[in-house]
Amino acid sequence: MEVCFTPQMVSLFDLRKSAVVVIDVYRATSAITAALASGVKEVIPVGTVEEAKAYKAKGFLAAAERKGAVVKGFDLGNSPIALSQAEHKGKSIVLTTSNGTKALLKTEGAKEVIIASFLNEQAVVNYLAEHHNNVIFLCAGWKDRFNLEDTAVAGAISRGLEAKGWHTHCDSALAAMHLFDIAKDRMPEFMKNASHTTRLGHLGLSDDLAFCNRRNEYNIVPVYENGTIRLK
Amino acid sequence: MEVCFTPQMVSLFDLRKSAVVVIDVYRATSAITAALASGVKEVIPVGTVEEAKAYKAKGFLAAAERKGAVVKGFDLGNSPIALSQAEHKGKSIVLTTSNGTKALLKTEGAKEVIIASFLNEQAVVNYLAEHHNNVIFLCAGWKDRFNLEDTAVAGAISRGLEAKGWHTHCDSALAAMHLFDIAKDRMPEFMKNASHTTRLGHLGLSDDLAFCNRRNEYNIVPVYENGTIRLK
Repeated sequence: MEVCFTPQMVSLFDLRKSAVVVIDVYRATSAITAALASGVKEVIPVGTVEEAKAYKAKGFLAAAERKGAVVKGFDLGNSPIALSQAEHKGKSIVLTTSNGTKALLKTEGAKEVIIASFLNEQAVVNYLAEHHNNVIFLCAGWKDRFNLEDTAVAGAISRGLEAKGWHTHCDSALAAMHLFDIAKDRMPEFMKNASHTTRLGHLGLSDDLAFCNRRNEYNIVPVYENGTIRLK
Repeated sequence: MEVCFTPQMVSLFDLRKSAVVVIDVYRATSAITAALASGVKEVIPVGTVEEAKAYKAKGFLAAAERKGAVVKGFDLGNSPIALSQAEHKGKSIVLTTSNGTKALLKTEGAKEVIIASFLNEQAVVNYLAEHHNNVIFLCAGWKDRFNLEDTAVAGAISRGLEAKGWHTHCDSALAAMHLFDIAKDRMPEFMKNASHTTRLGHLGLSDDLAFCNRRNEYNIVPVYENGTIRLK
């Protein structure tokens, strides 16, 4: 188990021998998980707003977020509540976000790429324990900086794997587990001071944040393969 | 207060408005602190073994460490015990290390560059509170990766500054403080699993590590200025 705190650091890790678990809990990977759990057929992550626009022009349902807000010209951003509405059932959604999709596009070479959030942490633990023997958590962070919330998810899943006999000498993973231990029984309070909570709270997204803090709401494992995310 | 976990991330921080506190507690900044506290006149950090050799050829006392060991051809590495021997009193020591000096050389533009370790954490707290109003902790890490021990020192000093009315919204600083809270009353146990402790323990450096874990042994503040480190 290793934890890569930000996409900028990914070159320090050897992805080829590992499953890579991408985490952007506020809100991209929570939104992807909620959307697929609600019957969306697939989520296609793209790096730029321009690509999302091109898909939209071709008739795709497209969602775009920058700086926490829905990008002008789009009806959807990365709200897990909005993306999991029943009307999207069976559809493909193209998604670009500030940090999460950027992280996803840096996973080339990994044995398998898995999408995680608090919403599906135990499902990811079980899946990793069954199908893999090593994992690198790739936290999306914020503009290449470390953030508390993605690290806490990595810590939660690491503790779950530890309970299944996995272990680590990676200091980032040890730190993530310690931080999760502190956070787990007082999540909203722990996250209160985190920079991203403050940032999104100011944008009126408190309902989304509360949704993203729910643990094990879904027993599903989204996997990113050949440019698209579907349920395994 | 902000914490930069590794030298690789330093470009994400604006050093110009801040004091920068460099931390490589196992062992470069502990060694520098102990040496200056013991009467060494100055420590001149250099980036490469070749530069250290050139200084040595000119008659300087030179110390070089790579991968935890003294580099062949040198009598000293970065052991705080060795560098603080009485025989070095009044001398200049040229020093190159795997991670610590590399971090020091990435501080260009900072308002002031301060050297910290557990050995002088309270002295650094007091100095920062008196002379500065912002600080970026630059942790040396290990080969550009995050490490627990440097982060714990950053957390210790951050908690000290918090007690003096400073505050932060930097997630890295919040994480560092949480990790220090966990570590402070059981430092050897907390550090036991850390990758670097394992690495150095295998090299027979347990005495050095125990020395580096001592808190507030010295009431001094080493400052790096014009290519050399001296007491302020």
